[in-house]
Amino acid sequence: MRAAIARRGHMVVEDVPEPVPGSGDALVEVKACGICGSDLHTLHHADSLLAVAELGGAESQFDPNADFVMGHEYSAEVVELGPETEGAPVAVGDLVVSMPFALVGAGLEPIGFSNSYNGAYADRMRLTAGMCLKVPNGLDARRAALTEPMTVGLHAVNKSGIKPGEGALVLGCGPVGLAVVAALKSKGIEPIVAADFSARRRAIATAMGAHEVVSPTTESAIDAWKRVGGSMPVVLFEAIGIPGIIDQAMRDAPPLSRIVIVGVCMETDHMLPLVGIVKELSLQFTFYYDPVEFGDTLRSIAEGELDVTPMLTGVVGIDGVPDAFDALANPEEQVKILVEPGAPAAITPA
Amino acid sequence: MRAAIARRGHMVVEDVPEPVPGSGDALVEVKACGICGSDLHTLHHADSLLAVAELGGAESQFDPNADFVMGHEYSAEVVELGPETEGAPVAVGDLVVSMPFALVGAGLEPIGFSNSYNGAYADRMRLTAGMCLKVPNGLDARRAALTEPMTVGLHAVNKSGIKPGEGALVLGCGPVGLAVVAALKSKGIEPIVAADFSARRRAIATAMGAHEVVSPTTESAIDAWKRVGGSMPVVLFEAIGIPGIIDQAMRDAPPLSRIVIVGVCMETDHMLPLVGIVKELSLQFTFYYDPVEFGDTLRSIAEGELDVTPMLTGVVGIDGVPDAFDALANPEEQVKILVEPGAPAAITPA
Repeated sequence: MRAAIARRGHMVVEDVPEPVPGSGDALVEVKACGICGSDLHTLHHADSLLAVAELGGAESQFDPNADFVMGHEYSAEVVELGPETEGAPVAVGDLVVSMPFALVGAGLEPIGFSNSYNGAYADRMRLTAGMCLKVPNGLDARRAALTEPMTVGLHAVNKSGIKPGEGALVLGCGPVGLAVVAALKSKGIEPIVAADFSARRRAIATAMGAHEVVSPTTESAIDAWKRVGGSMPVVLFEAIGIPGIIDQAMRDAPPLSRIVIVGVCMETDHMLPLVGIVKELSLQFTFYYDPVEFGDTLRSIAEGELDVTPMLTGVVGIDGVPDAFDALANPEEQVKILVEPGAPAAITPA
Repeated sequence: MRAAIARRGHMVVEDVPEPVPGSGDALVEVKACGICGSDLHTLHHADSLLAVAELGGAESQFDPNADFVMGHEYSAEVVELGPETEGAPVAVGDLVVSMPFALVGAGLEPIGFSNSYNGAYADRMRLTAGMCLKVPNGLDARRAALTEPMTVGLHAVNKSGIKPGEGALVLGCGPVGLAVVAALKSKGIEPIVAADFSARRRAIATAMGAHEVVSPTTESAIDAWKRVGGSMPVVLFEAIGIPGIIDQAMRDAPPLSRIVIVGVCMETDHMLPLVGIVKELSLQFTFYYDPVEFGDTLRSIAEGELDVTPMLTGVVGIDGVPDAFDALANPEEQVKILVEPGAPAAITPA
């Protein structure tokens, strides 16, 4: 089958062996898979990710210097159920999504960051049948594939503890920032102010629920917040993930604020602790989500409560994945590109 | 009167004009004043403190390049009440403490970090009469002076939200770390593991309530925690305040931990955000306390619930303050030195 492979910091497209469903596995045909900013980071900083995994005591078998196939924001159709899948919640022909983990023994293997389970930048892949959720309500494969990144936003908002009466300032309107905006909107948070240098991304943030958007070239994010939110308590969501942003957020944040860090910065960062101290700030780092949040997000999208359409900007075939990675470096051009195995190699509008 | 003056990074002792109580002021005679680690930091990093105050929008009148008299952990005797002090909660002859702020118009002037209100490294000082608390229960001036630093520990523990069923790892057994240990003990937290390179400070930590102490030269703090606390949830209290400690605490912390930052680091610090992200850590910075916490701490000390005696290691007169600042650089020698205006210039055991 065809697959886009991460090989020592570069994306290459080659034919690879077909995956064979083992015990408990579903073999699925990929229908759509979003390209995640984490994948772009991982391509260039895979060693950081690994070093951190080892710090946490995880005995990772992942070798980022060997080939691996990324892609963890997928929807797919079940084509075969392997041995010992009786009672699985899905059947052949079902459109499914799943959290990007495979059950392996007593542990979890992260799909897309693994040398043994390929991710969804490929024609087919193995999932753990028991972890698959059937896509309800006739939801199409493209929107279903957005379940994963939208859940990241929901989890960050849940973890923040934000509640009506508090406002939000979202720094960065890439897919993560937009998912945060949508989750804030669904919780009735008002006002939501979102900042990004890209006019296109700001327009999408508005479509997804931001009450005010700002370009830092014309007004600082915190000034825009103060203009709109005044002295209301505010939670800042850092969804940019480059060095220096946490420091800037700490300097900007009003006293007693919470800063929720959703953007994945893989490099060493700096800050002035004294700024945090005199304002008694809290920093909450967030990562992933739980199965309830994942299922809730799928349901919200399927029932039309959460419209992800504005985020979908491009579609590309597997052969076009390397170009799509390059295209995502330009925030004015693309927000979320979906890989569809059957699509042409050139990026087309979604 | 005599005063120890901070002058462009050095401590000098000179005669200065007597303070004159203005409207609402109490003139007090200093009985005892603890030397705080923040004072040592401020002597060398006063500009950082000022830069941060300005960031917060405070229109600070404080000029750290002009002379100022530090000392904000004091007990003192009221010698005169100024105009418009009718109804003040204290009378001439009372031993009092207060939060180290003076009411000036609608704002607060930080006593000890001000060019207009001298701190307590002096014979006498002005306090706001309405902010003074009479020391109850015959508590002596030395222990009463510990109200302020012990409240810092109580506030950090309150802010952490720690509750029985969670354990604590306290990094650093200087006065702040010891105050945290005492506050944890008073809340029934168990186990409390405390780490410090100094044998003397570890012994004091044990006396103040730590269930286990460890020297990082023989066992890492986190290994000691795991040995004692196992897989219990843990809150880490960072009470060292030098660059690199937050980064180390983030690397050591188990997933989902809270790290409470009580140590005041005045320099730029670094960290690897990815470590916080994959473990979903939270960092809570803490500073000061509220009036209820201050009054509670005074009551706890006065009623003998909180014994601060083990921390009191030295006493010095005003003329000895510069030497005492130097002595505090050696953690084996001293923990909390009290300045008593009438005491000899040489440091004597408390």
